[in-house]
Amino acid sequence: MKVADRHYRTIWVGEDGRSVDIIDQRWLPHEFRVVNVGTVDGIATAIRDMWVRGAPLIGVTAAYGVAIQMNDDPSDAALDRVWDHLHETRPTAINLRWALDEMKRVLSPYAPADRATAAWRRAAEIADEDIELNRSIGRHGLEVIRQIAAKKKPGEPVNILTHCNAGWLATVDYGTATAPIYLATEAGIPVHVYVDETRPRNQGAQLTAWEMAGHGVPHTLVVDNAGGHFMQHGMVDMVIVGTDRTTANGDVCNKIGTYLKALAAHDNGVPFYVGLPSPTIDWTVRDGVKEIPIEERSADEVSFVQGKTASGEIAQVRISPENSPGANPAFDVTPARLITGLITERGIAEASPEGLLALFPERARSAA
Amino acid sequence: MKVADRHYRTIWVGEDGRSVDIIDQRWLPHEFRVVNVGTVDGIATAIRDMWVRGAPLIGVTAAYGVAIQMNDDPSDAALDRVWDHLHETRPTAINLRWALDEMKRVLSPYAPADRATAAWRRAAEIADEDIELNRSIGRHGLEVIRQIAAKKKPGEPVNILTHCNAGWLATVDYGTATAPIYLATEAGIPVHVYVDETRPRNQGAQLTAWEMAGHGVPHTLVVDNAGGHFMQHGMVDMVIVGTDRTTANGDVCNKIGTYLKALAAHDNGVPFYVGLPSPTIDWTVRDGVKEIPIEERSADEVSFVQGKTASGEIAQVRISPENSPGANPAFDVTPARLITGLITERGIAEASPEGLLALFPERARSAA
Repeated sequence: MKVADRHYRTIWVGEDGRSVDIIDQRWLPHEFRVVNVGTVDGIATAIRDMWVRGAPLIGVTAAYGVAIQMNDDPSDAALDRVWDHLHETRPTAINLRWALDEMKRVLSPYAPADRATAAWRRAAEIADEDIELNRSIGRHGLEVIRQIAAKKKPGEPVNILTHCNAGWLATVDYGTATAPIYLATEAGIPVHVYVDETRPRNQGAQLTAWEMAGHGVPHTLVVDNAGGHFMQHGMVDMVIVGTDRTTANGDVCNKIGTYLKALAAHDNGVPFYVGLPSPTIDWTVRDGVKEIPIEERSADEVSFVQGKTASGEIAQVRISPENSPGANPAFDVTPARLITGLITERGIAEASPEGLLALFPERARSAA
Repeated sequence: MKVADRHYRTIWVGEDGRSVDIIDQRWLPHEFRVVNVGTVDGIATAIRDMWVRGAPLIGVTAAYGVAIQMNDDPSDAALDRVWDHLHETRPTAINLRWALDEMKRVLSPYAPADRATAAWRRAAEIADEDIELNRSIGRHGLEVIRQIAAKKKPGEPVNILTHCNAGWLATVDYGTATAPIYLATEAGIPVHVYVDETRPRNQGAQLTAWEMAGHGVPHTLVVDNAGGHFMQHGMVDMVIVGTDRTTANGDVCNKIGTYLKALAAHDNGVPFYVGLPSPTIDWTVRDGVKEIPIEERSADEVSFVQGKTASGEIAQVRISPENSPGANPAFDVTPARLITGLITERGIAEASPEGLLALFPERARSAA
């Protein structure tokens, strides 16, 4: 999407055709830095140290990492080596493994001399497929926004609350939860977005707010505590969030705090939607609260906050007593009963086993 | 309560008998500073610039301010002047106005020469009455904790979640929401407190966590987003919060985000209590969501976070893009239907008009 009036993706092929340019997201929203990465080690660092983040973007970055490797050494051994090397950077990321497997599957049949060309082509396709997936989610979500807009006075914006960053920065472009917002903007429907700051890592304040500001989407940054109040007062027309993992029952595991917003939406009759690329559905899991293990991250993320000092330096400050321990669960599970609809690339599913199977009938046998 | 093994109040009479010592709370949790204040201007600054905060403590500080004035000039004109001077420091604080009125009421009948003695005596009484009020709330809340403890295995702590700081730092001692926790500790009942950080001003991370650490109460600092997850997993036995204003129906206006915790407690069958000194009941208001205007504070509180830098300096960092606007409602309203009980100094009331009137029958006529 747009940054200072120019359209960007989060990753694209460099001028030399043998490297990639990426947005180094560690400095956002304070500095917009594009860096060129031309080695597998560089790609590994960018993924491991979160220069790029978001499951879809990590997968695409890894695919380009394989392509870079094929320029240097397209042997079978090198293909195995780059798989291992990149996989260990974020071993729990589903899309990372999928992208590495996919590149290996596509490249293995080729003679080594032909692999580089095939690799750059397939990596570009994976990037384009990600965008198309998000645009499809966007088109279905746009219909929801359009229906809400139709009930408003002309020119009155549709107020949308979102949590964390399921935005274009987490993908190649458009984002999952944000695709309907960007398509509504393109369609000329006025929207206004409440951006949850999303403690502890502040992805809302640092990334989603920056996306909205860059693309010119009217928005307001709010603390995570505020959404319930806004819903009580009719100031939110819909909620849309992303998901890290969705169960066959329609339970949604997403950034910590999502569940609280879903409760508030339910209590106030505000529709609650999830932008859901179907690869994040885990058909083997049913009860999300009981079955999904929640990653516990460092308590330092709770005790310290990163920002820009008065002198312009990016620094961390401690906000709590040194002898107060912290706990930091990274995700929570929103039960399907609180979800109005799952916006997939195939259409909007009711958050239920039946709703999901109606859109993904090929899963009916395995789920039976 | 205790700070480094010594018992403190938030305010006490200085060694010279003509001034007060206060904890300057602006530097907590990073620095514990006690300052001596001996002038009315000093008291006004301490209240206005939030060296002291919390409705009960503001009232007591103002009462001592009047006493300081009576040492310097006990005339009727001076009594009027100090009322005006201190009232304008935080004009919306109910307890401030009450304390100033009370001092004037008590002192007016005295001859000027006798007013200083009477003023210091009455201010000390107001401080002691605050502590007694909190201890009464504590005794009733302690019974709730005791009942939960009785169902646990021996030695297993009662897990209590609290939001913001309704602690001893907001009062003279014990606090409102925290009094049951401190009395449980004194009674030898093991408790463990989840402390919500409470964005945007972080009173949980800065004050409540510091209180708990100082008094030796086992606690864990968590982001405001996390409480729902802990409740889903049976890790919270009860919630207890304070209140800024309570309606005759039992709706509770408290720090922004309280409503979200009440929803999560209700959804998971976790009892949700409010520590409620009866002076905060506004018998003229019924529907809190519809009738209570919510203070909108500076968006800078959302965009900036205060903490301690690596070099030990207390500084603010910006966490959001400079061109992203923010919104900052300071309070929200938790409807009575989500509240298990209102713990007042007279006992625990059901959160309903009938429940409150049963404990405060003298209000029945005015409410009819």
